[in-house]
Amino acid sequence: MKLAKYFPILDWGPKYRGETFVNDMVAAVIVTIMLIPQSLAYALLAGLPPEIGLYASILPLLVYAIFGSSRQLAVGPVAILSLMTAAAAGKIAAQGSAEYIQAAVILALLSGVILLAMGLFRMGFLANFLSHPVVSAFITASGIIIAASQMKHILGIDAGGHNLFEIVVSLFEKLPETNLPTLYIGGASLIFLFWVRKQFKPLLKAIGLGDKAATIIARAGPVFAVVAGILVVAGMGLDERGVKILGDVPQSLPAIGVPTFNADIWMQLLGSAALISLIGFVESVSVGQTLAAKNRTRIDPNQELIGLGAASFSAGVSSGYPVTGGLARSAVNFDAGAETPAAGAFTAVGIALATVFLTPFLFYLPQAVLAATIIVAVLSLVDIPEVIKVWKYSKSDFAAMAATIFVTLGFGVELGVTTGVVLSLLLHLYNTSRPHFALVGQLPGTHHFRNVNRHPVVLSDTVLTVRIDESLYFANARFLEDTVYCMLSNRPDMKHLILMCPAVNHIDASALESLEAINHRLKDAGVTLHLSEVKGPVMDRLQRTHFLDELTGSVFLNQYEAMLELDEDCVKTAFSRDPKTTEPGTDPCPSLRHAGLEPANGRDR
Amino acid sequence: MKLAKYFPILDWGPKYRGETFVNDMVAAVIVTIMLIPQSLAYALLAGLPPEIGLYASILPLLVYAIFGSSRQLAVGPVAILSLMTAAAAGKIAAQGSAEYIQAAVILALLSGVILLAMGLFRMGFLANFLSHPVVSAFITASGIIIAASQMKHILGIDAGGHNLFEIVVSLFEKLPETNLPTLYIGGASLIFLFWVRKQFKPLLKAIGLGDKAATIIARAGPVFAVVAGILVVAGMGLDERGVKILGDVPQSLPAIGVPTFNADIWMQLLGSAALISLIGFVESVSVGQTLAAKNRTRIDPNQELIGLGAASFSAGVSSGYPVTGGLARSAVNFDAGAETPAAGAFTAVGIALATVFLTPFLFYLPQAVLAATIIVAVLSLVDIPEVIKVWKYSKSDFAAMAATIFVTLGFGVELGVTTGVVLSLLLHLYNTSRPHFALVGQLPGTHHFRNVNRHPVVLSDTVLTVRIDESLYFANARFLEDTVYCMLSNRPDMKHLILMCPAVNHIDASALESLEAINHRLKDAGVTLHLSEVKGPVMDRLQRTHFLDELTGSVFLNQYEAMLELDEDCVKTAFSRDPKTTEPGTDPCPSLRHAGLEPANGRDR
Repeated sequence: MKLAKYFPILDWGPKYRGETFVNDMVAAVIVTIMLIPQSLAYALLAGLPPEIGLYASILPLLVYAIFGSSRQLAVGPVAILSLMTAAAAGKIAAQGSAEYIQAAVILALLSGVILLAMGLFRMGFLANFLSHPVVSAFITASGIIIAASQMKHILGIDAGGHNLFEIVVSLFEKLPETNLPTLYIGGASLIFLFWVRKQFKPLLKAIGLGDKAATIIARAGPVFAVVAGILVVAGMGLDERGVKILGDVPQSLPAIGVPTFNADIWMQLLGSAALISLIGFVESVSVGQTLAAKNRTRIDPNQELIGLGAASFSAGVSSGYPVTGGLARSAVNFDAGAETPAAGAFTAVGIALATVFLTPFLFYLPQAVLAATIIVAVLSLVDIPEVIKVWKYSKSDFAAMAATIFVTLGFGVELGVTTGVVLSLLLHLYNTSRPHFALVGQLPGTHHFRNVNRHPVVLSDTVLTVRIDESLYFANARFLEDTVYCMLSNRPDMKHLILMCPAVNHIDASALESLEAINHRLKDAGVTLHLSEVKGPVMDRLQRTHFLDELTGSVFLNQYEAMLELDEDCVKTAFSRDPKTTEPGTDPCPSLRHAGLEPANGRDR
Repeated sequence: MKLAKYFPILDWGPKYRGETFVNDMVAAVIVTIMLIPQSLAYALLAGLPPEIGLYASILPLLVYAIFGSSRQLAVGPVAILSLMTAAAAGKIAAQGSAEYIQAAVILALLSGVILLAMGLFRMGFLANFLSHPVVSAFITASGIIIAASQMKHILGIDAGGHNLFEIVVSLFEKLPETNLPTLYIGGASLIFLFWVRKQFKPLLKAIGLGDKAATIIARAGPVFAVVAGILVVAGMGLDERGVKILGDVPQSLPAIGVPTFNADIWMQLLGSAALISLIGFVESVSVGQTLAAKNRTRIDPNQELIGLGAASFSAGVSSGYPVTGGLARSAVNFDAGAETPAAGAFTAVGIALATVFLTPFLFYLPQAVLAATIIVAVLSLVDIPEVIKVWKYSKSDFAAMAATIFVTLGFGVELGVTTGVVLSLLLHLYNTSRPHFALVGQLPGTHHFRNVNRHPVVLSDTVLTVRIDESLYFANARFLEDTVYCMLSNRPDMKHLILMCPAVNHIDASALESLEAINHRLKDAGVTLHLSEVKGPVMDRLQRTHFLDELTGSVFLNQYEAMLELDEDCVKTAFSRDPKTTEPGTDPCPSLRHAGLEPANGRDR
């Protein structure tokens, strides 16, 4: 049992049957066909020789089949990690150099080690620091940069640039050098691939194919483009008219081994490897969870770290580059009927066979076709409606999103994602550092206490109650102090202050210190401090301190009891025939004023 | 009105009366007497010539009187900032050099600008990032380092070191070189000052003095030590026997001006200046709030930033070094009856007069006496009971505290406080990323729903309810997903899932995304998702999205209504004579298992 936790293969392996084998085999053949052009294209995007892409699709798949916890996840090279690899390796050496390739291999090794360590120390929670808007913004911005960077292959020109602005300027400058045969092939591929993506599937269904079959065939669009591209270039000898082709790909399996250790380079790549690991993990887990939920299974995020870490490390020892679970290929794997990770292992065998036997046929494959498959794939990642949705839902989340997009486009992927993460953390802390407090009074004729800013309530002159709508911790402890001192300086009649805590889930040591300070200072000013509706776990913890002994007032199980004891007359007023209730007005203390939102049809608290 | 907000002097100035003047004047005389030895001592601690300490106690006090929002806060050089100044300036130049003094002046200017900017942009909340345990740990560790570093003056030896370990080793190595006359003076001062601190006040009260008078006279202990020290050294000619004395202090007021701008040095000092600003602000605000609460007034933290920023900047333009509000001198100012910031202005005049007329008399003042006053002052900052208290209350807060103390002692003040801040933020995020979830059932015979792990409750087989005891945001959104998917894979009979949200104060965009994903995936698996007891502001916000339209189930005002509609039989069972309730057992999902704390006598939720 314990062992099966770390080797999920021990769980599904023994139950493996012939029927499952057939299903896995069919899925593997389909995924292999889809993965060959993808592997070549993403290697191109990463600035690596095409065989590196194939190598990254062999051993990692075998290893993931042993350690991975997802049944249908298909790992291998993906667009975003290819871009991040190019950015990181580009800081070490020039594209095309042996050092550049080595840097990509080291990134895979380092990323493998980082993911494995995170898995062993159960630190999967670190991925939670990447908020959804930041990840979504980062993927959108990366998609735009990737699409822009691949346009040079469609046009057959030699453009470049380190950010979107430079890339676009460079494309326009070199536009006159456009190679027309390349443009025709690239343009035709783009149009074909967009058409396949949008309209091929409905067409297939119209001629009678089932939904799954249609989906799978439509996904194989790039394969048709590849075959057509090879035939056109080879048939018309376009490679002699300036169309760049894939050329010779070594017909051998990758050598196993690690590059010689150079502490300087490894240290330089460590930060990039950490970012690659986190982004790859977040993407993969999200894909894995989607698939697992479909058949009521689940994946274990910490085991996924081990599976992906082992896969990435194995990519490194077999001359590959960082890999993770890909959305499109996993979906195809699932739709094609894969039942166990064995499908991934069979795919690995398929790619290995293709590497050895198929590469000569890919000699005339035009780079423009690969670039077109990349552009079509990444433009589907660009999610502008999501940006609009977040803008409508939360300005704070939108700020993190906008910063991520802007910095990624303008200053590169690594700075972009880092900015987003740091900003979203700071904004979260800022937001919780100014929590919602409400001065509450009794709703006439009921036992309920509600916000004076939203309801006409009966308020006592001598007993004031503040409801705290947030856990108390260091970032907002002083805000609570400010609020209480503000009330103290504005309400000379106050004799008792009740802090009503039904939504306080934690009180940390800083907040405890603040509560103690409030207690002491109120005491000096002749005001008694009480608490009401404190949660069980919070109370348990307070009982370990001297705070409750020093508290000038009491802890009440509920607010109604508190008012009954401290100001029975006021409670009687609330139950009288025509009680005098509060008028909506402005409170002298800003924190008790910021209602923020309008009352919403009765759901209001 | 608007102007008075930024110039609090316009508020109290026009109401100034003769009686207030007398009270302020008395307080100013007392604070001046106390501040002279303090200013000299802290300059010594900062590695600066004595007059710099006096300069830092003139113009800043005048400026704070105009801009500060606290009525009784006394600003000037303090121990912690002196240590931090020494650490920062020591990175630029050697102690005693002109560049070192210039660095201290630049730190004051930079810190002034930073505080002013924070005040104008209302960024006082940044100080909240310094949790109480971190600040307390930092002050304790700084106190230990300061005390250790001053021992060389008590022994009359030339020791040094950059961390506690080095300082202690160096002290032991140089111990044989101890200068006996210095040791006698230093030791006697230490014993006298400790005695004054502990027993002089009770003695004064025993001979009939009032509490306040006794407090004030006891606080003047260092003055007696200074006078005695001068008389002994001058009388016995001890300066010729190796006792280091203050020597010549320029008998002039500071020149006004700023050092020539050198972008390199200013940039190098920027980080240190930011830390000095934050620490100084946190300390000063805490002192200011304590005093303000005593007479039911309050201070405005953002205006305090402006007051302290202007004071620090004015220290820079008058050859001083960073200043802030000091605890001891503010307490004396308050006890001595200061009523308005004018007392601070009168103190400034007093220090100016002392600088011009009194400094010749300080020629023979032994440094050992100043070191003794520092040691006695800072040892009162060392708060070991606080460390023990935090240990008992929260292991997470203690971890941040221990790291701060350890790094401050071992690697210096700046790294220490930075480590503490970063660690406390990470721990906070980690803690809220694994919030408390509870599977809840109906308490037999009531309308209440409680945690199955703490109460025998009636549970439905088809309708499961999870209570979420935390706001949902990016760091815990995936944890909620994990929990729901775990339930999904373990409970084949589940038809409805209710998320009960009475303690959910926010749902950010990431958590909304997770709720949408949960909704979709539950739908795929044939389970309906409902919400209950959603707070008003949260509901307002959800209504701006499509989530409520797409939600497969409903939003219920309260949990009882939800169960009544979804599983009436189960509710009937709960009200039947002998309902079958849950046995405490272990849940297959870890997040529903971690009760953490034992039930606490009925307060439990």
